[in-house]
Amino acid sequence: MDLERILTAADEARPTLRRGDPAERAAWLEAVAEALEAASAELVALAGTETHLPAARLTGELRRTTFQARLFAQGLRSGELLPVRVDAADPEWGMGPRPDLRRTVIPIGPVLVFAASNFPFAFSVFGGDTVSALAAGCPVVVKAHPGHPELSRRTAAIVAGALRVAGAPEGTFALIEGVEASLTVLRDPRIRAAAFTGSTAGGRALFDIAAARPDPIPFYGELGSVNPVVVTPAAWAERATAIAEGWVGSLTLGAGQFCTNPGVVLVPDPDAFLAAVDLPVPGRMLTEGIEQGFAKAVSQVGALPGVRVAAVGPQNAEGVRAGVLRAEAADVLADPRALEIEMFGPAGLVVGYSSADELIGVLRRLPGQLTGTVQAHSAEADPVAAAAVDALTETAGRIIYNDWPTGVTVSGAQQHGGPYPATTAPTTTSVGLSAIARFQRPVAYQGAPASVLPPELRDR
Amino acid sequence: MDLERILTAADEARPTLRRGDPAERAAWLEAVAEALEAASAELVALAGTETHLPAARLTGELRRTTFQARLFAQGLRSGELLPVRVDAADPEWGMGPRPDLRRTVIPIGPVLVFAASNFPFAFSVFGGDTVSALAAGCPVVVKAHPGHPELSRRTAAIVAGALRVAGAPEGTFALIEGVEASLTVLRDPRIRAAAFTGSTAGGRALFDIAAARPDPIPFYGELGSVNPVVVTPAAWAERATAIAEGWVGSLTLGAGQFCTNPGVVLVPDPDAFLAAVDLPVPGRMLTEGIEQGFAKAVSQVGALPGVRVAAVGPQNAEGVRAGVLRAEAADVLADPRALEIEMFGPAGLVVGYSSADELIGVLRRLPGQLTGTVQAHSAEADPVAAAAVDALTETAGRIIYNDWPTGVTVSGAQQHGGPYPATTAPTTTSVGLSAIARFQRPVAYQGAPASVLPPELRDR
Repeated sequence: MDLERILTAADEARPTLRRGDPAERAAWLEAVAEALEAASAELVALAGTETHLPAARLTGELRRTTFQARLFAQGLRSGELLPVRVDAADPEWGMGPRPDLRRTVIPIGPVLVFAASNFPFAFSVFGGDTVSALAAGCPVVVKAHPGHPELSRRTAAIVAGALRVAGAPEGTFALIEGVEASLTVLRDPRIRAAAFTGSTAGGRALFDIAAARPDPIPFYGELGSVNPVVVTPAAWAERATAIAEGWVGSLTLGAGQFCTNPGVVLVPDPDAFLAAVDLPVPGRMLTEGIEQGFAKAVSQVGALPGVRVAAVGPQNAEGVRAGVLRAEAADVLADPRALEIEMFGPAGLVVGYSSADELIGVLRRLPGQLTGTVQAHSAEADPVAAAAVDALTETAGRIIYNDWPTGVTVSGAQQHGGPYPATTAPTTTSVGLSAIARFQRPVAYQGAPASVLPPELRDR
Repeated sequence: MDLERILTAADEARPTLRRGDPAERAAWLEAVAEALEAASAELVALAGTETHLPAARLTGELRRTTFQARLFAQGLRSGELLPVRVDAADPEWGMGPRPDLRRTVIPIGPVLVFAASNFPFAFSVFGGDTVSALAAGCPVVVKAHPGHPELSRRTAAIVAGALRVAGAPEGTFALIEGVEASLTVLRDPRIRAAAFTGSTAGGRALFDIAAARPDPIPFYGELGSVNPVVVTPAAWAERATAIAEGWVGSLTLGAGQFCTNPGVVLVPDPDAFLAAVDLPVPGRMLTEGIEQGFAKAVSQVGALPGVRVAAVGPQNAEGVRAGVLRAEAADVLADPRALEIEMFGPAGLVVGYSSADELIGVLRRLPGQLTGTVQAHSAEADPVAAAAVDALTETAGRIIYNDWPTGVTVSGAQQHGGPYPATTAPTTTSVGLSAIARFQRPVAYQGAPASVLPPELRDR
C-alpha cells in the first residue's frame, strides 16, 4: 500500500474527472453494480463469514447497494444531480447592471471515505459515501473497516476492475487499510473532503483532525443517535401489543447494530409496556470490539441515577443478551446522560412519562438525532403526537410516524442526518440523492463565452 | 447588553420562527428595507463619518442592501428558497417497498453573525448573512464591527424597530458588541451556526472555537483571497492600456478594501505592463488597524525572495500610497508565499510569466480563491485563456472573463466562496440567493398525515 502513489494518482485523476461527461460516470457506476451482482454469491458468503450477518440480510443489502449506484447513475443522466443556474445579463437589475452569470457544480476533489462495520456493502467500500462522491466526480480513497477485511479487499478489487474496464482513469478509486494510514491521508492537502459513519468518539477524533489541518476540509461524520420513540397514550390504548412488539423487533433487528436503532422509548405506562416486551435471542454481533462496547454502554446507562434493568432476554452462543433498562422522565430530566449514551446493540431504555408536558420536556433535552419516531393513534386526532412531532423536528433529521426508524430507504426525499452528535454537518444527508451535494462545489462564470464554459452552461 | 437575556430570547423565538409563515418573514425583510431607506440620509452621513467612504459609494451600497433584502423576500414568496421534495409510497421501489417520504427545510436555529468593516451596510448589521439567516427563519445575533459602532447601533435600532412593528417575535434580532461577548455567544449551545466576513487570521480563530465546542456548529467564514488576474498574450496585444487601467481601477477602488480585490496579476510582459500603470491617490482607509495591517502585508510580500517594489503612487492625507510589487513566475513558484499573503488595501503584485506552462504552474500553486479573472482576446480564439479558466476552476468560486472581480452582483446564480482560505465552507456561498442554504436544515417526514406535516408538504 503505497500511500504517496495513491494520493498522487487521485490528485492527477481530479481534473480528468471534473472535465469528464457525467453520463460516463453514470456508466462507471452501473458497471460496478453489474460486477458486484455477478460476484454476489461469493461476496455474500465472504460477508457472512466476517460479519456473522445472515445471508438473507446480506443479499438484501447488496441489492440495496447496487440499486443505490444505479439511482445515482440515473440522476446524473437526467441532470437532476447537476444543478445549474443561468442569470442572463440584465442592465435593469435593481442594484445596478447585472453581468451574465452562470453557476454549475464541480467535484470538490479527492475524498477519503471511512467505511462502516455494520453495513458491509451499503455503508462500506462501495456504499453511499463512495457512490455519491464518485457520482459527483471525485476520486475516492476508501479506508477499509477492520471488521470485514477480506470482503473489503475483494469488493475493492471488483470495483477497481470494473472502473478500469469501463474507462475510468487510474486514481479514481483506491482502498487503504489501517488507522495510521487513514490519518496520514486525512491530513494530506490533496484530500479535499472526508466522510465517516461510525461512533461519536471515533468520528469526533477524525473531525478534530480535519478541522485542525492548515487548510480545514469538510468532514461529513454520521455519528451517534439514540433515535427516540414516543408512544402516545392514544396509540397505547389503541394497539399496545403491536407497539411493544414493533419496538422490540426494530430494537433487536440485526442485533441492534443500526444507526437508527430506536434506543429510547417514551411510554405513558412503563409497567404495562414492559409486561408486553418479549426479548428474542440476539444475532451474533459484528465484532468482539462492538460486543464489548455494547456491554460497556449498557452498564454505563444502567449505573445512572434512577435507571435499572427491567428485562433481560436469553443469551446467544457468544453470551450476549438483549436487554431493556427503565427510568422515569424525572430521572432523565435530572441527569440527561441516559439520553446521550448510545447502546449500540440490542438494548433500549424505556422512559415513563406522566404528562404531555413532561414528555415534551424530555424531547427538548435530547441532543441531535438521526431520527425521531412517533407512535400515534391511527385514526383519531392525537394532540400529543402533534406536539411530539413538533418537538422532534427541532432535534432530528427524519420523523417517522406510525412506523419504525430502522430500514432507511434510498430516494430523492431521504434525509439521513441531524444536529450534532447525529452528524458533524447538519445541513447535509449521507443517504439519498442529496448526499451528492456534500461533494459538489459551486462555481460561477461571469461573462464567459461558450468556448470556455462547461457544456451544461452553454446556451442551448 | 445582557447576553443571557439575548440568548434566551433568541432560543425562545426559534420554534415560533420555524412554525411561522415564510410570507410573513418576507414582509419583515421588506419592512426593514423600507425603514432603512427612510433613514438613508442619516445612515449615509453616519457611515461616511465612521468609515471615510464617499457618500456616492455608501448610497449605492445601501441600495444594494435593501435590494438584497427584497430579493430574498421575493424568493420566499415564490417558494424558490424553500425546496421541498415529495416521494410517494412505492411498493415496487427497487430496493424494497418505499414509504411515503417528504422532505422540507427548517431553520438551523439561532445564528451569530460577525459584521465586516468594509461594507458598513451590505456585509454588516443587516447585510447578506443577517438577511439570509432571517429569510431561513433563524433568530440572528449580530456582533457589531468596531470600525463603525454608531452606525451599527443606529442600524440595529432601525432593524429591531421595523421587525417589532411588522410582528416579528421578541428575540428575532439583537446586536452585541465586543470580542469577549462574541466569544461567549459563539460558545453558547443555543447558537446553532455562525457566519463571518473578514481576515484569515480572525476567521480561523473563530472557526477553531466553533469546531472545538462540545457540539461543533457550522462556521461559515469568508476569509482571505488574492483574486488572481491572468492577462493572456493575445489580450495584451489587443488592448494593453485598457487592461492596465482596468486593473488599477479595480485594485484601488474603495482604497482596495474589497474581498475580491485583484491583488495578483499575471502578465506576459511585466515591463510594458508596469509602464502602463498609473496609480491614483487612494481614498482614506476604513480604520487605523486596517491601515497598519496593509502596510505590514505590503512589507511582508516585498521582503520575499525575488519580489521588489515597482511603482508607488502619490500619498493621501493620511500618508497612505497605492503600490505595485513585482516578481517573476519562477520566484513565486520557488516561494509561493507571495500568492498567499493578502494585501488588504490598494496594492498588488505583478508576476511576469514566460510561457503558458509557467502560467498554469503558478495558477496550480494558488490556494483557494473567491475569484479568478482572465483577460482574454475579445474576438479571436485564445487557448491560453481557455487553459487559465480550466486551472482557475479548481481553485476559485467565481471566474470572471474580460471583466474585473470587484462589484459582486446579488442574484440567483452568484457564487461568493471557494476552497480554504477563501472560505471555511467551500460548498456554500455568502452572496446571492443560495446563501440561505447555509442556515436551512433538511427534515424528512415518513408516513406522516397532513395534520402533523408542515403546510408546504401537504398534498395540494
